[in-house]
Amino acid sequence: MLSHYYRNRKNRTLPVLKTEKDLEAEGLARLSIDLPSFQVTDEPDSAISASPTVASRHNSFILDNPATRRPKAEDTASLSRYSIGFDVPGAVHTIMTPKLKTERQLDSKLVVVMVGLPARGKSYIVKKLRRYLNWLQYETKVFNVGNLRRVNKNSQQLDQSATFFDPDNKDGSKIRDDLALMVLDELIDWLKSGGRVAIHDATNSTVQRRKLLIDRLQREPEIKVLLLESVCTDKAVLERNFRLKLSGPDYKDKDPAKALSDFRHRVANYERAYESVGDWEEENDIQYCKLVNVGKKVIAHNISGYLSGQCIFYLMNFNLAERQIFVTRHGESEDNISGRIGGDAPLSAKGRKFSKCLARFVKERRIAFALDLARRKIKQEKESKDPLKGSDEEDEDGIERFRTEKKVKARAEAISNSQFTIWTSMLKRSMQTAESFDPDEYDIKHIRFLNEINSGSREGMTYEEIKAQHPSEFQARQDNKLYYRYPGMGGESYLDVIHRLQSMIIELERMNQSCLIVTHRVVLRILLGYLLEWSQTQMPHMLVPIHTVYELRPKPYGVELTNWTWDEETDTFVVLKETTQ
Amino acid sequence: MLSHYYRNRKNRTLPVLKTEKDLEAEGLARLSIDLPSFQVTDEPDSAISASPTVASRHNSFILDNPATRRPKAEDTASLSRYSIGFDVPGAVHTIMTPKLKTERQLDSKLVVVMVGLPARGKSYIVKKLRRYLNWLQYETKVFNVGNLRRVNKNSQQLDQSATFFDPDNKDGSKIRDDLALMVLDELIDWLKSGGRVAIHDATNSTVQRRKLLIDRLQREPEIKVLLLESVCTDKAVLERNFRLKLSGPDYKDKDPAKALSDFRHRVANYERAYESVGDWEEENDIQYCKLVNVGKKVIAHNISGYLSGQCIFYLMNFNLAERQIFVTRHGESEDNISGRIGGDAPLSAKGRKFSKCLARFVKERRIAFALDLARRKIKQEKESKDPLKGSDEEDEDGIERFRTEKKVKARAEAISNSQFTIWTSMLKRSMQTAESFDPDEYDIKHIRFLNEINSGSREGMTYEEIKAQHPSEFQARQDNKLYYRYPGMGGESYLDVIHRLQSMIIELERMNQSCLIVTHRVVLRILLGYLLEWSQTQMPHMLVPIHTVYELRPKPYGVELTNWTWDEETDTFVVLKETTQ
Repeated sequence: MLSHYYRNRKNRTLPVLKTEKDLEAEGLARLSIDLPSFQVTDEPDSAISASPTVASRHNSFILDNPATRRPKAEDTASLSRYSIGFDVPGAVHTIMTPKLKTERQLDSKLVVVMVGLPARGKSYIVKKLRRYLNWLQYETKVFNVGNLRRVNKNSQQLDQSATFFDPDNKDGSKIRDDLALMVLDELIDWLKSGGRVAIHDATNSTVQRRKLLIDRLQREPEIKVLLLESVCTDKAVLERNFRLKLSGPDYKDKDPAKALSDFRHRVANYERAYESVGDWEEENDIQYCKLVNVGKKVIAHNISGYLSGQCIFYLMNFNLAERQIFVTRHGESEDNISGRIGGDAPLSAKGRKFSKCLARFVKERRIAFALDLARRKIKQEKESKDPLKGSDEEDEDGIERFRTEKKVKARAEAISNSQFTIWTSMLKRSMQTAESFDPDEYDIKHIRFLNEINSGSREGMTYEEIKAQHPSEFQARQDNKLYYRYPGMGGESYLDVIHRLQSMIIELERMNQSCLIVTHRVVLRILLGYLLEWSQTQMPHMLVPIHTVYELRPKPYGVELTNWTWDEETDTFVVLKETTQ
Repeated sequence: MLSHYYRNRKNRTLPVLKTEKDLEAEGLARLSIDLPSFQVTDEPDSAISASPTVASRHNSFILDNPATRRPKAEDTASLSRYSIGFDVPGAVHTIMTPKLKTERQLDSKLVVVMVGLPARGKSYIVKKLRRYLNWLQYETKVFNVGNLRRVNKNSQQLDQSATFFDPDNKDGSKIRDDLALMVLDELIDWLKSGGRVAIHDATNSTVQRRKLLIDRLQREPEIKVLLLESVCTDKAVLERNFRLKLSGPDYKDKDPAKALSDFRHRVANYERAYESVGDWEEENDIQYCKLVNVGKKVIAHNISGYLSGQCIFYLMNFNLAERQIFVTRHGESEDNISGRIGGDAPLSAKGRKFSKCLARFVKERRIAFALDLARRKIKQEKESKDPLKGSDEEDEDGIERFRTEKKVKARAEAISNSQFTIWTSMLKRSMQTAESFDPDEYDIKHIRFLNEINSGSREGMTYEEIKAQHPSEFQARQDNKLYYRYPGMGGESYLDVIHRLQSMIIELERMNQSCLIVTHRVVLRILLGYLLEWSQTQMPHMLVPIHTVYELRPKPYGVELTNWTWDEETDTFVVLKETTQ
């Protein structure tokens, strides 16, 4: 090859796009393919061994391998879709020109099309995904077809019983397709008017239906599509979910027995026609993700978009374990007394007193939780023995109840012995707040990502001083706390803090044991912003005083929250309020 | 339920683990389950509807759903394995006690067991994973069984022809099992002596073999296991990979024809016995990941470990596109002249001159690359027409060669028009260095993650000043640059910078177009550390002067590197050296 290259240079039959220098450079590039070092390979099994004699064939491996996900170089349009997707609000700024603005107006927008039979946890996944993406500041909205169907029902008095869902009922399926497309158009309009991720929440259970939606989306070539299917193979869970349906909006105030049979019938109809995501999508190179048993198994195909990758990584990590999550700020610090922001001051005497009480309090709450959980577990075990009769302690006699409570106690003790994790930041006031917990009993971690927002050159000032010395800055921050970044090296905005907390949220979702997080005002607002789904306008302004503990219990339908406040007098914690969302 | 709770409190048949206060608290917890707000749900399809009447059944959903991946609360040992896995070198510090040290000595260690037929790109994936994990500072090592087999061959003169791989050849398969276990023991010893991730690189193509390995690993309950299978369904790629094998260590200096047939025979033997990862692993709840066509399709099952999740996210995102990656520091800044670190100074006159030349240079290199790529593509197309004869321009006559070059030129022009991305940091000197690039032609992004290391309270000082005023600090940094964190709020270590660059590496692997990265000394060292697989001892000390451009071309077997330096005199770039690894 080398000699060939020089011969070409000599007799110049080679058309040249550029200067002699290019050819030189190009020659060098080709030379390097023939470097002897290629002869050496420590990898016998390598699919792509490195001998010079086959160097060019390697490249054919790269060029032709379907796995490269690389459109033909000629196809610049689709190429241009790749990097644009990479957009982290506040951390990535893409330079725009009038030309680009029009070209890329819709680029990096994503439509998530849900797929799955009823009672497969679709809406749970949808809700969770919406919460996560909105928290990352990608404006995300769910468009539910069922709701629209019900609205229609009420307006047009359609027959909504199982027969409506009979695939052979042409009218019914036609109407359902029209509704799905109606919602899709609504969703596309919303994306065009500034939304970022739109979720099409319906069963979309046939290839014909999915084709219908994707054909429509083809007319918006710049919008990416991710099919997200939820499959549930666990019979017991399904049976339970079916019964839950009876309390759903479709069956409220109907005879349970009749309702259940109608719902079974309706699902049976779906099942007859159901076509799981797979061959058709793969033949058509469609980006899809299949979640089996709520993330136990994940199948991802042709994932290329930045946002899609983020979604799947998130969905792959979460679990439904029952647990307590406590979130609080550090105890009062020296700087809190003088009202200075930032810094790394130690706890005040009062702060140290709080930290001691906190350790006692958490221990107590762990036991209360263990009792509650144990009681419900045993109740379920009873029910599963006799599922049809909803068990009710009412009919238990004294002895029976005593036996039960003995079991409860044993179970509760086991639970309260299970592992409990404590996260603090790497700042003194936060680490000291956790010092009263026994490291043999608690898994204690100091984590840099949990440090307070970096206020750059304003570190160590009071808000009054900032207001007085930098009034316009102070105002700018009040006007847009989310995007306002403190001046000076390392100065952060709320958005910057969200990015460094992303890996903490993934870890919080991944791990399944209870935990206590001891952190700081801004970080706490952002964590609660995720856990309680605060809007981006609420989140930076929520009142989160020190010596307040937020106890959360994630539930499939949301989260139970109890606010506790430390009463210095009695040195105990008292309930401020409980809410559920 | 409420009334029941109070009745229990009255007649006290309830054994109490704790104080009255507990029961109170517990009661409140149970109360909150009955809040009316539950009656409202906007989710018709919800698998887990939110009516109070079934609140307890919900929980059974959570408790019994296999998807919760939550071991029975009783099983605290396995619970304790979850969070320990979360360990980010430098950013997460777990408090250890003598008791924990012994208990958790091996926790958060990972064995990746590779699975796949020969020529499926296993070793490529293995090499890539090792590079990524080592870069994240998780010490990772590959243990290749094939190498050991070959060593054995040379020592014991074993018959290594295809018959050796015949599943019916009991001796052969026995020997191969023994070798696999030998390597596994070696690997476990290495983990015990401080390693973090060990990769068992072999075909491991039968359930019997995998069971053998996993049974052995059961004796180290604290070590997590991830099965990682590579499947290739693309016939063309397979045929090509087969031929590459002939140059591999097993067949060097052998008659190609005989070698190929022997290798085919050998693979056929493997294929007869091959059992893809799946049912057996799922029945046994084993954590596995299957990569189809090098990441085109990914199947992940029971992923629970922190490190496993990281590996899979990485593997899901990379692609094999042929492209150029240019990496350079910003042009000379005002601070470079005065030798001050950090800050946000603008470019000097010299720096501005460099930035203009850089734009011309990159344009030229894009064309050289396009020519090279086009030529190889066309060569391959010829080959694929007549695969058996290795095409060689030697036998082309003048006209033929001219035709070819015309095609090459057309193809090259298309390629050089494809999208090209430029990343800079958000600091002036970096953004200004990219100002000579046309934003309509290049996709230009300013990215905060690419900012220089934050030197905290040492910002704006010269190294001489630091050495003079803080000699011990200066020494500490020299001794361990990787872990040394600059004092003052926001001060960073190399490790801290690695963490914020993690998402950039994922994006660099995910996107498939060529790019130029304009950044800073420390960030550049860390990026090249990943791209060129520098060891953690080399990386912080490599010499990376300004006005030097690193041109990389990722290849399946490594990367081709050309170092260019800017010659101010002639205002052109000249090659310093080319290497391949």
